[in-house]
Amino acid sequence: MKQLIGNAVVGQSGGPTVAINATLAGVIRGFLENAHGGCIRKLYGMRNGVEGLLQERLMDLGAFFDTEEKLELLEHTPSSALGSCRKKLPKVEADPAFYEQMLAIFKKYDIRYFFYIGGNDSMDTVAKLSAYTAEHEYEMVIIGVPKTIDNDLVGTDHTPGFGSAAKFIAVTMQEILRDCAVYQIPAVTIVEIMGRDAGWLTAAAGVGLAVNGQAPDLIYLPERVFDLDTFIADVQEALKKHPNVVVAVSEGIRFANGKYVGEGTQTGATDAFGHAYLAGTAKTLELTVREKIGCKVRSIELNLPQRCAAHLASETDLTESVTVGRGAVRAAGEGVTGCMMTFIRTSEDPYTVEVGHSDVSKIANQIRTVDDAFINEAGNHITLACCDYILPLINGEAKCRYEKGIPMHIIL
Amino acid sequence: MKQLIGNAVVGQSGGPTVAINATLAGVIRGFLENAHGGCIRKLYGMRNGVEGLLQERLMDLGAFFDTEEKLELLEHTPSSALGSCRKKLPKVEADPAFYEQMLAIFKKYDIRYFFYIGGNDSMDTVAKLSAYTAEHEYEMVIIGVPKTIDNDLVGTDHTPGFGSAAKFIAVTMQEILRDCAVYQIPAVTIVEIMGRDAGWLTAAAGVGLAVNGQAPDLIYLPERVFDLDTFIADVQEALKKHPNVVVAVSEGIRFANGKYVGEGTQTGATDAFGHAYLAGTAKTLELTVREKIGCKVRSIELNLPQRCAAHLASETDLTESVTVGRGAVRAAGEGVTGCMMTFIRTSEDPYTVEVGHSDVSKIANQIRTVDDAFINEAGNHITLACCDYILPLINGEAKCRYEKGIPMHIIL
Repeated sequence: MKQLIGNAVVGQSGGPTVAINATLAGVIRGFLENAHGGCIRKLYGMRNGVEGLLQERLMDLGAFFDTEEKLELLEHTPSSALGSCRKKLPKVEADPAFYEQMLAIFKKYDIRYFFYIGGNDSMDTVAKLSAYTAEHEYEMVIIGVPKTIDNDLVGTDHTPGFGSAAKFIAVTMQEILRDCAVYQIPAVTIVEIMGRDAGWLTAAAGVGLAVNGQAPDLIYLPERVFDLDTFIADVQEALKKHPNVVVAVSEGIRFANGKYVGEGTQTGATDAFGHAYLAGTAKTLELTVREKIGCKVRSIELNLPQRCAAHLASETDLTESVTVGRGAVRAAGEGVTGCMMTFIRTSEDPYTVEVGHSDVSKIANQIRTVDDAFINEAGNHITLACCDYILPLINGEAKCRYEKGIPMHIIL
Repeated sequence: MKQLIGNAVVGQSGGPTVAINATLAGVIRGFLENAHGGCIRKLYGMRNGVEGLLQERLMDLGAFFDTEEKLELLEHTPSSALGSCRKKLPKVEADPAFYEQMLAIFKKYDIRYFFYIGGNDSMDTVAKLSAYTAEHEYEMVIIGVPKTIDNDLVGTDHTPGFGSAAKFIAVTMQEILRDCAVYQIPAVTIVEIMGRDAGWLTAAAGVGLAVNGQAPDLIYLPERVFDLDTFIADVQEALKKHPNVVVAVSEGIRFANGKYVGEGTQTGATDAFGHAYLAGTAKTLELTVREKIGCKVRSIELNLPQRCAAHLASETDLTESVTVGRGAVRAAGEGVTGCMMTFIRTSEDPYTVEVGHSDVSKIANQIRTVDDAFINEAGNHITLACCDYILPLINGEAKCRYEKGIPMHIIL
């Protein structure tokens, strides 16, 4: 195919992660290193995703990132340096004006390359824009680069951002286990971990199983129906073995009737996508243990640090995130479009990975849940096979720079 | 004075910290290096503080720690490796049998040296045992080594453990600030930080002020009366400046009537089982902001990781903690007793510190609150002088060892 010559724009969307800026740095590196083979003239960054693009809030990334130091700082800065948005694109027939405006901006800035770093909703954006521009005969390369701590995108071995969040959870769990072990009186500690639809992050709490044998006593994922009586029986059984019981639960665990365990404590608020807003799963279980067992009990929500603790980023995750960003620019230069970049695990031991890409229309709006083989038979812990899958992704400690004891970040 | 010859016992008490094992390692190092000048024959560790001592649950620390590797692992292991207890010693007249039993154990194991690593209650233990053994003519050296993330002990520039907890809070706050900055819609994030009686840890959230200018918009310490109307006005003022307002609050903030903000506040919400949902400090403020301002708002409790995140320990804190443990053994060899080891800041810039000791009876059961000069006039932020005090204590990043991506700890 003939090479498209024009400008490129890159954006970040959805919830922040520790690695989304590393992917952005990868796109910028790919551009500066001419991985596109000369077809991209300028690389713009859109502020706050497609919302900022519509407002023509663009910055010239090629001009700004003129030193290696800036790129390295970007790679170790958590969250979305360009800003983010939670805009879900309308259907074309519902709001044709939106797409006409977008197309006009592409034409105005001679944008022929569109890179969008994000999760499931962002891949939906990539799919819709790909379909629209193709139908309207505006030749364009549109590529999604995955990003989500939840690791719930199909078509890829794992997602950039997951490894760092998983590492934060795995490390913090080791530390919580030490903390909880100091007293002799029976006590239950319930740790709530992010992951609305898939239990990947919660599973990461258990990887010590395959390293030092230190793991929570019980792990509950949203892939299994949650039953309160079974939970209480599990906790009582664990308390027979030792006084300090630690439980990891996903925020997304649900009862047989489909209701989230934490749903009752909320007002029923939903986010922009209609997802039920959750908090309070561990709190609900804390109250239940207090009532049914009566021992000392506390709940901990790991909360935002799960997705922004850049000081504890997985070196593997950051390196791969840069690689996949660079890979997107290379793929663009080869005319690949309408796709999401992917990771293919080419070997288990030693762990090796290659960058690939898949048709985004086959990826968007699906959920990849934790494999059956990764959950134990009782549905209250993970398996060693699960550890084998997760451990390579949390390997290595990223070296961020510190100034007077606090980490250095770049602010765009 | 003539040197006492006999055995020593060391224990850990109170809430765990990241540095309490470094202090224990310092005591062991001091013993192995003969800092005591030959007067201590054996160094026992008591399991679970004085509770384990009463049960004669002792381990021979000198024999166990026979390699540098074990000592280094101990220094980077969070929480109390020997286990802890929360026993507050009775008054002698209330329970003479307790003291008689303790004395019998000292005699049985020929214990002439007693090191107790802990916070305020532990210093009370040191004071009571010192008084009792002196009155009963059992010659003994009893030394307290401070430990508390709260930094609220009098008589010392700061406490071992504070620097690491403060570093976790300072670093996490930088990351939360990045995370909160990505969207354009007005949003308030309220971060609850430990510290019931003193605001030192909450103050640490603001140290970016003196480093990169990045700090929460508002910081509320328990040293100032908390007023809801003023708080709402402060938040509204902050929202005029930028859409993403971040607030740090101490769990210990109180209203003018002396009631804790988080005390007994019911949100009105109930969980799936109809239990009233009891809110914390930040949760209470979240609900208040939602009601009075109506913007997007969330609350985060930093919770246990504040006191156990050893992966992010302050190098300064760990080094000093080892030093003060070693110093206790040296002081014991010199016959110092009935005292708590202290830090004396001998220079501000460059920061230098010396180990000293003070009469424990003048220290126990007092609270050192944040200096007036460290809180701004409006009572809603810290001053640069406060940053100058805290920053040297969080300096440097301890290098803990990792195995397959998770930190290596020692379990005794």
